[in-house]
This record gives sequence, C-alpha cells and structure tokens, in this order.
Amino acid sequence: MTVTNIRGAGAGGVGRQLMSEPIALLGIGKIARDQHIPAIAASNAFALAATVSRSGGVDGVENHDDIAGLLTARPDIRAVSLCMPPVPRFDIAMAALAAGKHVMLEKPPGATVSEVLKLERLARAKGVTLFATWHSRHAAGVAQARAYLRDAQIKHVQIDWKEDVRRWHPGQDWIWQAGGLGVFDPGINALSIMTEILPNPVHLTGATLAFPENRDTPIAADLAFAGPAGMRVAAVFDWRQEGPQGWNITVDTTQGQLRLTDGGATLHIDGMAQKKDGLGEYPGLYHRFAELIEAGQSDVDVSPLQHVADAFLLGRRDVVEAFED
Amino acid sequence: MTVTNIRGAGAGGVGRQLMSEPIALLGIGKIARDQHIPAIAASNAFALAATVSRSGGVDGVENHDDIAGLLTARPDIRAVSLCMPPVPRFDIAMAALAAGKHVMLEKPPGATVSEVLKLERLARAKGVTLFATWHSRHAAGVAQARAYLRDAQIKHVQIDWKEDVRRWHPGQDWIWQAGGLGVFDPGINALSIMTEILPNPVHLTGATLAFPENRDTPIAADLAFAGPAGMRVAAVFDWRQEGPQGWNITVDTTQGQLRLTDGGATLHIDGMAQKKDGLGEYPGLYHRFAELIEAGQSDVDVSPLQHVADAFLLGRRDVVEAFED
Repeated sequence: MTVTNIRGAGAGGVGRQLMSEPIALLGIGKIARDQHIPAIAASNAFALAATVSRSGGVDGVENHDDIAGLLTARPDIRAVSLCMPPVPRFDIAMAALAAGKHVMLEKPPGATVSEVLKLERLARAKGVTLFATWHSRHAAGVAQARAYLRDAQIKHVQIDWKEDVRRWHPGQDWIWQAGGLGVFDPGINALSIMTEILPNPVHLTGATLAFPENRDTPIAADLAFAGPAGMRVAAVFDWRQEGPQGWNITVDTTQGQLRLTDGGATLHIDGMAQKKDGLGEYPGLYHRFAELIEAGQSDVDVSPLQHVADAFLLGRRDVVEAFED
Repeated sequence: MTVTNIRGAGAGGVGRQLMSEPIALLGIGKIARDQHIPAIAASNAFALAATVSRSGGVDGVENHDDIAGLLTARPDIRAVSLCMPPVPRFDIAMAALAAGKHVMLEKPPGATVSEVLKLERLARAKGVTLFATWHSRHAAGVAQARAYLRDAQIKHVQIDWKEDVRRWHPGQDWIWQAGGLGVFDPGINALSIMTEILPNPVHLTGATLAFPENRDTPIAADLAFAGPAGMRVAAVFDWRQEGPQGWNITVDTTQGQLRLTDGGATLHIDGMAQKKDGLGEYPGLYHRFAELIEAGQSDVDVSPLQHVADAFLLGRRDVVEAFED
C-alpha cells in the first residue's frame, strides 16, 4: 500500500472545482517540454502559472531563477511539479515541502531511496501531498494487465527494454554520471510496470551490469527476480539496440499469456488486442496529482527504485567498450 | 521505529524462564565459531541444541545437512540463528519462518533490501519474531553515545573504518563476490552505529567506490551524508590499511566532542573515557533475541543496508589495482 492519508479528505481540493489550480513547473528540459507542458495545457485541474529554469522558461509564462524566487514571488501557488534530474532535485523538493507546497516528482523520485523516505516524512509532517510519479504505470494497457493478473498463477515474466540511447537520450549527460542510473533510467519504467501489475512482490536474485569503460553508469543490464511458488522474472535492459526498438513485457500464466508492448501502451491477451484505456501517461499523472491533493493523500512507492538500488548492490559489474555520444 | 509487535506480549516467552530455550545455529563458519557459539554458551536464555552445516558442525551437538533435515528432526526447536553469508541465507530464512520459527539474522540481513522486506512480511504473517541483528550496536559505548547525542546539535561526524582485509577476512571468498559487499561488510557496522546514535536520519549525497580490477566488490569507499541544519557525515572505509587498525567515529556537537573507538567499544566525551556498559556485542544480541521472543516483537531495521545500496546506486566507481588474497 503506497497511498497514505495526510489530512481529512476534501480540504483544499482542486480536482473537481471549476477554476484550475495554478501550478509551477521546475526544471524545463526535454521531459518538461515533451510531456509536462502539453499535459498541463490539456488538464482541467491545473494551469501553468510559473516556471523555474536557468536555461530559459516557457514563452508567456513567468519564470524564476530558483525555487527561493518562486516561493517569495508566488505564495498563491500551492502545487509544484519537479522535472529536473534526481541529483539536484532533492534540495528543491525539501524546500518546496518545507514551504507547504504539494509536490509531484518526475521518476525516479530520488538519487537514493533514503532521500525519498526523508521527503515522505517531511510531506507527512507538513500535511501536504507528495506524489512520486511513475509515468509508465499510466500507459494504456497497464491497468487492465494488473486486473488480469490479480488472480492469475504466474509462471514466468520476460521483460525486454531495448532502445538506442543515441536516439532517445541525445546530449543528456546526467544519465551517464554517477546517480544518473544509465540504462536503468528507461529500465526503471519497466520495473514500475512490473511492480504495478504483479500481485505479489518479487526480489532480485542476480544481476549483471555492463559499464562502458568511460562511463559511471551501465549501458545494459540483465536482472533475475524470484516471486512466490517458483515464479521467475527475467529482465534485459539494453541501450545499444539499433534497428527495431522494443519495450515489452510478456507474462506466462497457467491460464494464458499476457503481452504488454510499446512501453505498456498496447496489451494483448492470448494474442488478442485489448482496448486501450486511461488518459495516457502524463495526462494521467496530472489527473492523479489533482485527485491526491483533493483527497488529502500522498502516493510514494519506492519499490522500482529499491529494485534498481538492489541491482547495483547485488549485481556483477562487467566493463564493456567505451561509449561516445 | 524498527520494533513491531507480532502478537500479545508474553506468549511463549523464553527470556525469564528457568529452562533455556533450545536454539539451532545454521552456517558454522568463522563468525559462528568466533562469536555465536561462545555467546550462546554464556547465555541463560538459550542452549545450542542443533546445527546445520555441510562443512562440519560442533563437537557434541547434533548436526543436519540442511534446514529441511533440521525442521523434520527437531520440531521442538522454536528459535534459529542464521550465520551464513547473505546470498545463500534468504531461502533458508524463508523456510524457517514458513515453519513458524523465530529467526535471528547475522548482518547484513540480506543480499538486497527487498528480500529483507519479504522476510519481514512473512514473519508478521506467521506471528513469529524476526531479529535483523547489527552486532556493533551492542558495543560497550554505543548506548551512552546515543543518549548523549539525543538532544545535541550535531555539526559534523567523521567515520574512519580502516583495517587490513588479509588479517580480518582471510579466505572469505564470498566477500569479494557480487552481493558480498566488499569493504562494506565491515563498513556496514559503522553505518549501523551511525543510524543508532544519530537522533535524525541522514541521506547519502555522494560516494566513491574503489573496485580492484579483479574483484566484484569494493576494497575502499568514501561516503558523504547530509542531515538536518547543515549537518554532514564523512565516512572513509578502507581495507588496505596496514599498521595500526582503526574503527572510529568522531562527532562534533555545539556542546562538545564525542569519540567512539575500537568499533564502538570505547567512548570518550571531551577526551574523558566513559564507563563501558552492556553485555558485549554477541551476548547482547542473544539477550535481545530472547527479549523480542518474550515480548512478541520483531526488530528489523534495514537503514544500514539501505545506505549501502544507496552508495552502490549513487557512487562513482574507480578501478584500482588488483587484489590478491
């Protein structure tokens, strides 16, 4: 159970009112421009009222250099969404929570598990909503996959998350720096789906991580997990994939096969395509953030990041050829 | 808070009865022979009734080849203590808990954090005691250090854990294998003291891990943590220490300096030696295990292992010269 109550439901709700809640977006990089800004623009619950960026904000939107400037200038803004990489994000998240703001965190929610637990404690103490998002959980096939597996006897799960890093993460230096997760930056999306759809927790039993000799984070990883009654999960993350790209999860159960493709957006059960549902990934996240604020709840599930930390802890390191961007 | 109630206090207690509770010891290696067997021999609460070992048991004590043999032959034994390395320990711990045994785990409590959380869930479901031990927390200066720091304003903590791996871990191949933790095997003792004596949680902000080019685990590590109000912790773990060996923690506070040496066994405050207290490390652990069983409680604190996982996750990897045992 990752949802916790922070106060009486209904107080200060924003989800169902006619006026949109002003929200500030902090960290205006690729993910903010590609996903957050369009999702907020399409949202009935939120209106983009300010940004914090040192490298340029958004046309027509008030911009501040740092969180301190935002907090001073706009006490009326009660909700903030943090899109910068995890390493610089922690201090900003602490400052926002300390100022009594509702906070939404891009994935991964922290550079370490311990710091996410600190944010959770502070949010609880301040009585505000903390939402550690996992956007892939809102992909169009995930909720139905979870429902299908709820009572299934699962035999084996195969996760293949294979993409070309040059195509999907051009110039994102931070992903190669210590704490930037490397191939686990996309791979954690697969783990966030895995932990959402499997009815019982699994634990890592082995891992191999391939580090380019000139980089601090892995370019590929093989993981093995074990669950109840002999259930096994095998996961392959690879950033060296040329040609067809793939983000697929196949679950074999005693009653049939479930297959999530396109990062969770497409669901087949025994080869039959299922209807898509939900609002889509980032619109789904903002809808959920509004719901959590409305209900006086937080939603912080560290399990995907915990599995990544466990993989670094338990995994064997292989050094592979240098990677040049 | 790491202590949780598993059932009504007093049921099935062993701590204060006249007869000793039979206990089985599983994994008869160096730590079992050096510490566990003498501590059980000196304990009023427990009597060593059986062992599980494939490499030779203890003279005069019934030995079984595996946990299944023990469980079948000795249903009367309600408490087991697991001393094997973390990687092979999980399945054995699950089997013992599933059979309704009270379980005590050597440190670290698992090869991953997620598996410890699984053990905790199973212990709760079965209504038995799970005790994830941290022996250094029972060193003679730790309880007083915790009391001194409870209301202190801490400025800086310096941890130096420097020992010669050849002297202290001869032939322990598993510590060099993935999941064996390397220098974090002793270093986690320092982190277990740190998390015990500091009144507020800290989180890792940076780490450098030195991996010998022929090994899967680090031989040295530098860690930096941050706490409230600008408090900082610097930790240096090094297995390459020749000459004087040292396991020291120095805490500078606004009212004075606290210094734990000898792995926590000796405490100085402002240069004044303090009286030692407690039963000693392993006698203290068995006393506590009996208390937990008596009270119907579990004690599982993963925070030291969480910090190690965070260090592997966030840390920069340096490759250093090969290490030959």
